[in-house]
Amino acid sequence: MTTLIKTIEVLGIIAFALTGFYAARKKRMDLIGVYSLGMLTALGGGSLRDIILDRHPLFWMEHYEYAVLLLALSILASLAAQDIFERRSLVNIMLALDALGLGSFSASGASLADQMGCALFVSSLLGVTTGVFGGVMRDIVCNEIPYVFQRTELYATCSFIGAWTYLLVVRSSGSDIMAVIACIAVTFALRVLALRYKIRLPI
Amino acid sequence: MTTLIKTIEVLGIIAFALTGFYAARKKRMDLIGVYSLGMLTALGGGSLRDIILDRHPLFWMEHYEYAVLLLALSILASLAAQDIFERRSLVNIMLALDALGLGSFSASGASLADQMGCALFVSSLLGVTTGVFGGVMRDIVCNEIPYVFQRTELYATCSFIGAWTYLLVVRSSGSDIMAVIACIAVTFALRVLALRYKIRLPI
Amino acid sequence: MTTLIKTIEVLGIIAFALTGFYAARKKRMDLIGVYSLGMLTALGGGSLRDIILDRHPLFWMEHYEYAVLLLALSILASLAAQDIFERRSLVNIMLALDALGLGSFSASGASLADQMGCALFVSSLLGVTTGVFGGVMRDIVCNEIPYVFQRTELYATCSFIGAWTYLLVVRSSGSDIMAVIACIAVTFALRVLALRYKIRLPI
Repeated sequence: MTTLIKTIEVLGIIAFALTGFYAARKKRMDLIGVYSLGMLTALGGGSLRDIILDRHPLFWMEHYEYAVLLLALSILASLAAQDIFERRSLVNIMLALDALGLGSFSASGASLADQMGCALFVSSLLGVTTGVFGGVMRDIVCNEIPYVFQRTELYATCSFIGAWTYLLVVRSSGSDIMAVIACIAVTFALRVLALRYKIRLPI
Repeated sequence: MTTLIKTIEVLGIIAFALTGFYAARKKRMDLIGVYSLGMLTALGGGSLRDIILDRHPLFWMEHYEYAVLLLALSILASLAAQDIFERRSLVNIMLALDALGLGSFSASGASLADQMGCALFVSSLLGVTTGVFGGVMRDIVCNEIPYVFQRTELYATCSFIGAWTYLLVVRSSGSDIMAVIACIAVTFALRVLALRYKIRLPI
Repeated sequence: MTTLIKTIEVLGIIAFALTGFYAARKKRMDLIGVYSLGMLTALGGGSLRDIILDRHPLFWMEHYEYAVLLLALSILASLAAQDIFERRSLVNIMLALDALGLGSFSASGASLADQMGCALFVSSLLGVTTGVFGGVMRDIVCNEIPYVFQRTELYATCSFIGAWTYLLVVRSSGSDIMAVIACIAVTFALRVLALRYKIRLPI
């Protein structure tokens, strides 16, 4: 079960990085830009979480495999033809993996904040911060208004509900693993439904 | 007296948040964007202060009422007609409360840095950082050049002079409360005068 | 030798600040904007390094002379005619000092991370972060896509190779001073060559 959670986290990091690579390529950046934007998108939310919660060293500094893996992937992404990123099938796979990553990151933020004794509402906000701020930083660097703040298909909302799912399940069942799985499942399902039926917030 | 200071702080946070809500509405963001931008504007400067000074947990994580209050206000702000934010009377009240908040935040940054033994000049800079960086982050997210860096009616300058007022009064009188009141009064008066007479820096 | 390294660091900070002053003047900011942008460019990378590595107080809070010096320089920069910044001779001097600063900052980031037991690859990334993130923040505030991520004359690449030079020399020779000098020399030489011959990354 922990292997499954770990696998989802890695897939999520890769999906987040791919959105960063794609944004960098669209802005005609070179390898440095592609790698930096991939790193920022994939590791930015978790880094901010660790800095806010005063957890040192930051998670990617302990597991430097992430940084090396993203360097290798960013070289491939820089060599690839630009239109690969726009192929319907790849876009759909990326959206699905991205939704898994969103769930996994939301759970990790809520879980770590909860373990440090934060109030439930604060823990849920830390979950959302971990899930969405990598993308926010990506969009800021690309000189765009962050996607997640616009009238989109429930991105941060899925993360918020997922984080609350984690918190309620961990409180009622006492099982961290079950809570993480529940959070990922709820976040993923909501996000896919929102994309499929173009659900947006009414206000 | 401490109740007065606390009240001013809360009014300031609300005023800061309102400028974030307004900016988000102008950019046609949904509730998530409105709430995030309100939070960033109201709590961003204080969060940066706490991270720079290594104070954990961050102030809004201990007082989670702020985050809940801003969520409620952001729902109201998302439901409100857009032109409410542009009514002359509301704009004037918001500018006045914002000036109080600027004073209150400047005092808190200078005070906390001073207590940690920073040099006077560094403490004054921390005061300004606390006062203005929420607004800087708001403008960056909105893809605008920060208002405070432009040729405006003495925004950061008021904060800087207010912070020095705090530091000089606390050194000479030994009273933290008197120094906070003096800082808020000076910052507020300067900012209102600058707005009234369109005073700007000569360079 | 340490005096030489210190001198290079100060020259680098001044050069970084000048690029911030220039960017602020181009955007028609007032003294507050000029000073803030100079501070952000010159001290932002090192501050981020210290926050990531949990080093407190931040380097410029202990050495507040930097903040005072940059205030004095920013007043001069605000009074100066705009076209001074565009004079060929000044631009060349600034580019040379900036390359020295890039080397010096890259060495400091790699060195501090290495001393804290980070993996070599992570230490090299901290070197690059320290060297380039001041400029990234400057460009974000100015509402531009960061220069360093675009197809430029090997800016971050020089920093990356410089950081690895530091790490390899310090491991093989055991001398921190020699490694810093080697890092600055390699970064500087590479950057100057890249500017001279318009070398860019192939991808």
